[in-house]
Amino acid sequence: MISLATATINKKVRANIKACLDEGMIGGGRFIKEFEQKVADYVGVKHAIAVCNGSMADIVALAVLKHLYPNKTEVIVPALTFIAQINAVIINGLTPIFVDVGYDYQMKEPKIIDDTLCVMPANLLGKRCDIQGNIILEDSCEAFGLKPRDMGTYSFYPSHTITTGEGGMIVTDNDKYAELARTIKNHGRKGNNVLDKFHFNMIGFNGKMSNISAAIGSAVMDDVDEIIKKRKDNVVLMNELTGNDFYSESPHAYPILCDNRDEVLLKLEKNKIEARKLFSCLPTQEKVYKYMGYELGDFQ
Amino acid sequence: MISLATATINKKVRANIKACLDEGMIGGGRFIKEFEQKVADYVGVKHAIAVCNGSMADIVALAVLKHLYPNKTEVIVPALTFIAQINAVIINGLTPIFVDVGYDYQMKEPKIIDDTLCVMPANLLGKRCDIQGNIILEDSCEAFGLKPRDMGTYSFYPSHTITTGEGGMIVTDNDKYAELARTIKNHGRKGNNVLDKFHFNMIGFNGKMSNISAAIGSAVMDDVDEIIKKRKDNVVLMNELTGNDFYSESPHAYPILCDNRDEVLLKLEKNKIEARKLFSCLPTQEKVYKYMGYELGDFQ
Repeated sequence: MISLATATINKKVRANIKACLDEGMIGGGRFIKEFEQKVADYVGVKHAIAVCNGSMADIVALAVLKHLYPNKTEVIVPALTFIAQINAVIINGLTPIFVDVGYDYQMKEPKIIDDTLCVMPANLLGKRCDIQGNIILEDSCEAFGLKPRDMGTYSFYPSHTITTGEGGMIVTDNDKYAELARTIKNHGRKGNNVLDKFHFNMIGFNGKMSNISAAIGSAVMDDVDEIIKKRKDNVVLMNELTGNDFYSESPHAYPILCDNRDEVLLKLEKNKIEARKLFSCLPTQEKVYKYMGYELGDFQ
Repeated sequence: MISLATATINKKVRANIKACLDEGMIGGGRFIKEFEQKVADYVGVKHAIAVCNGSMADIVALAVLKHLYPNKTEVIVPALTFIAQINAVIINGLTPIFVDVGYDYQMKEPKIIDDTLCVMPANLLGKRCDIQGNIILEDSCEAFGLKPRDMGTYSFYPSHTITTGEGGMIVTDNDKYAELARTIKNHGRKGNNVLDKFHFNMIGFNGKMSNISAAIGSAVMDDVDEIIKKRKDNVVLMNELTGNDFYSESPHAYPILCDNRDEVLLKLEKNKIEARKLFSCLPTQEKVYKYMGYELGDFQ
């Protein structure tokens, strides 16, 4: 099977994991900060906060904004994206406002209103979605390395650019966002000293990444340029083979538009080539949203 | 430092992790099912569903019940427990109803009403909380191995009975609960075949445990009897040293009541012995709950 997902298991991955095991540090540990620092340096941001997966990165990032702007309730999202992005809005008790996506995989310009907490584009397929808004929270789960304007989220799931198995990260230059994200992903904990450790200032999640996952991530970061170059080379090759001219800053997958999609998917599977739908149109195809009473807008 | 947390790193842990790396399977993989099966067999339940941490186990278990009984909105919880249990209620948009805890660390009998979705005791310190209710969802994050009446949750955080770094599990004999939990922890995904994979029947979370974490868990399960025996021996020793007669089915920590708690905590820390508060009284000490508009009840 030619898989959509591959994991980079270099020598450093094995050495780092051995260190976790030898030191008996598989929960918290030194690799978390190391991985965060490498990602912050690579992206060129002040703060990188490791979390347990990309969905949790979205959940925590939205919880940060909700905490700062409790009266703003709406989050503008693309109609075509992975459902975890929308679920992160709903889990925070916020309302998703769907905006259509063009044939360039980019969310169209949204209408900002007083209730808008933030605009949350998805940098689908590693392509930056250039969009305006009050606060831009970029779901870059498919676009590792893109520097966000205000705040961004990455996923390290096996099908993404680099993988830690399960894992995610929030990146931002904003000190307040970063401080709140660190608190919220740690149950809302007040502090780590012995008297504060079981006091909590806000509602939080367990969004922590384990030291083992971070040990993998930190090791893989040493090869990140090579990994992204390989992905870019594959896009060039696919463009040659298909005659298309797809371009992406940090390639995730290669998109092909076709009328007989399901037929093609089954044929590829039969030939042991993994492929998938991009996503579904969430407001129309996912019945769960129809029943939740949101204004879903006019989509096909 | 004598730590509250230790990780069991046996030879099997190293062998299992090597297998994950050699097979390139660090996200999904065969150890997840293997770990689940070992836990199900050990506990004596039909279903065990691995998740990314104990907080997520609570979140997903409550989401299962909420899905089945959408008109029931209240969850009865102890006033003294880890805050993640209460946050799991709130994250699901449900209302926590706090019930006091006695000097035996057990939640007192609650009043069940029509709106009660479930009673959610915590088996604090590994002691079973024997309580009545319509549906009992047992937070056994501190009580690995206790078989729940209806549904239970475990945590594999380093301070708990066995650890996978970060990790959790839901256990139940109920087929419907198990099926829903598997869907909800996987984003609400409809199915895994190529045409269904990006369709979703319900709101879900990314609650997935990685193959690496499961590889650790599966290996540690081979030593679980020995680990729990050691904990029980330590309780006997502490009873001898303190003159108390604490008993717990699956010991987590040894509790000591004292008036000058904070002084003792700081003294122990100075002598490099890690200790902690049990928890705080959530409805009175955690300001965040005061401001959320819940009926908090009358607690000291």
